[in-house]
Amino acid sequence: MLVPHPSTEVTDAARAMLDADTASASLGIDVTAARDGRSVARMRVTERMVNGHGIAHGGFVFLLADTAFAAACNSHGPVTVAAGAEISFVASARLGDELVATAQERTRYGRNGIYDVTVHRTGSAGDVVAEFRGRSRTVARPSTEESPP
Amino acid sequence: MLVPHPSTEVTDAARAMLDADTASASLGIDVTAARDGRSVARMRVTERMVNGHGIAHGGFVFLLADTAFAAACNSHGPVTVAAGAEISFVASARLGDELVATAQERTRYGRNGIYDVTVHRTGSAGDVVAEFRGRSRTVARPSTEESPP
Amino acid sequence: MLVPHPSTEVTDAARAMLDADTASASLGIDVTAARDGRSVARMRVTERMVNGHGIAHGGFVFLLADTAFAAACNSHGPVTVAAGAEISFVASARLGDELVATAQERTRYGRNGIYDVTVHRTGSAGDVVAEFRGRSRTVARPSTEESPP
Amino acid sequence: MLVPHPSTEVTDAARAMLDADTASASLGIDVTAARDGRSVARMRVTERMVNGHGIAHGGFVFLLADTAFAAACNSHGPVTVAAGAEISFVASARLGDELVATAQERTRYGRNGIYDVTVHRTGSAGDVVAEFRGRSRTVARPSTEESPP
Repeated sequence: MLVPHPSTEVTDAARAMLDADTASASLGIDVTAARDGRSVARMRVTERMVNGHGIAHGGFVFLLADTAFAAACNSHGPVTVAAGAEISFVASARLGDELVATAQERTRYGRNGIYDVTVHRTGSAGDVVAEFRGRSRTVARPSTEESPP
Repeated sequence: MLVPHPSTEVTDAARAMLDADTASASLGIDVTAARDGRSVARMRVTERMVNGHGIAHGGFVFLLADTAFAAACNSHGPVTVAAGAEISFVASARLGDELVATAQERTRYGRNGIYDVTVHRTGSAGDVVAEFRGRSRTVARPSTEESPP
Repeated sequence: MLVPHPSTEVTDAARAMLDADTASASLGIDVTAARDGRSVARMRVTERMVNGHGIAHGGFVFLLADTAFAAACNSHGPVTVAAGAEISFVASARLGDELVATAQERTRYGRNGIYDVTVHRTGSAGDVVAEFRGRSRTVARPSTEESPP
Repeated sequence: MLVPHPSTEVTDAARAMLDADTASASLGIDVTAARDGRSVARMRVTERMVNGHGIAHGGFVFLLADTAFAAACNSHGPVTVAAGAEISFVASARLGDELVATAQERTRYGRNGIYDVTVHRTGSAGDVVAEFRGRSRTVARPSTEESPP
């Protein structure tokens, strides 16, 4: 597979959203691609994300998936927020795991969109950790009435 | 309403789960009740949870709801994990908001349970921020195969 | 409990929607109340709804819940359609069972609403058969772009 | 595209499930493929499925998707039931439309599975009508405790 030039991997619209998303950045989430309704985001499971048994709080897995979802649905240009999401927890993530969330647009209709995000851990196993489906809504401008993803 | 004695508000089983949940504690999440399939959890929206516009990342709202869900479904005793969840984002949470998540069991069947969690902000308005529904699964012991909530 | 006068149990707006809903009527679904964001709908499980083992197709259980949802969200007046729904199947329904779906509004925001519907079977047991959560969207007039519930 | 030999398109396990599913058959649902966690099911929107405005009740769209889901998750052999499902209604289906539901397995873990089903209408437009995600659970034998899809 040819590696695309990095500067073309994240659209300007997604970049603007990501630059403002200091919450994701502070967790070490790195969005490496966001274009054409797709995205890839990575996160290392750190001490602060796990419980006393070394297992990641499911909320942080959701947060990674949600960030990938936001990057994908904002890659088209118009400001788009999360209306909701569904997640199934498939396997535990553990301290030190590198997680990769891959988002893909399933459909868009009117101002709505549906995006599928798979979170898996890297490495030889590459197991799926979670399956996420997000519902997006395009807004005229950054909304104060709906929660941005 | 009589205020129950604090020591009776969180069952031993929920307390054991919460004591291990250092991830929630590090976000300042405080579970003030967990008994009979119900729970209440609180969280202040801090700088690290918001984007450049002062709006909370939806993932942190999910995380609060997920913690309330975990406290409620573990209040009965047996170790119980999150199989999945659905969230609808109703309104944005903002820097400084105090959020309260109230979890209530809807039904249990076999090893499965369904819990509804409403997240609202405190204050005169008391607006709903998110509606969450979690699906739980009771396990024989702390599972390494399924993600704990 | 006082039994309300039947003519006040279903609002005019819900009645208009139900009168047009010949699909529900042809399945024998009877909406006995629809007011203030709540509703009750009943259905008997018939031969055509079951498989060779006498167990109802989950799709008919969904259909009953969806009809109760439609009655509840249209009870307020403005034409409202189903944007989507989530269902958990709790127990099988069987040939001859009378099922009752009880819908209750959880929240409304902007043109959106969230409704919870519990389907249970009547009789001494009264077991829960399914838990459903519907997402509604109010439209200016009967939409051709979104599926009515 | 080469048309596969019909006898190889539906596995024996899926066929056994479908032969018992007289409810789907009575609605004219035709499962034309069910193999390797995938399936295709078709249904014509008839008079009894529509309201007075000629628009299909969303419950029948769900029912078609649910049948495709059942065929896909039973194609592997072991008896598998629907634990739950989520549906987003994208566009209305109308009297006379031929709907096609295409199911695809997303992941399996333990006794659980996740399946995505897209329902679209045939013809030049080929618009998406609904997006469905089903959660399956493999059982030892046909369960009386959980609703079969």
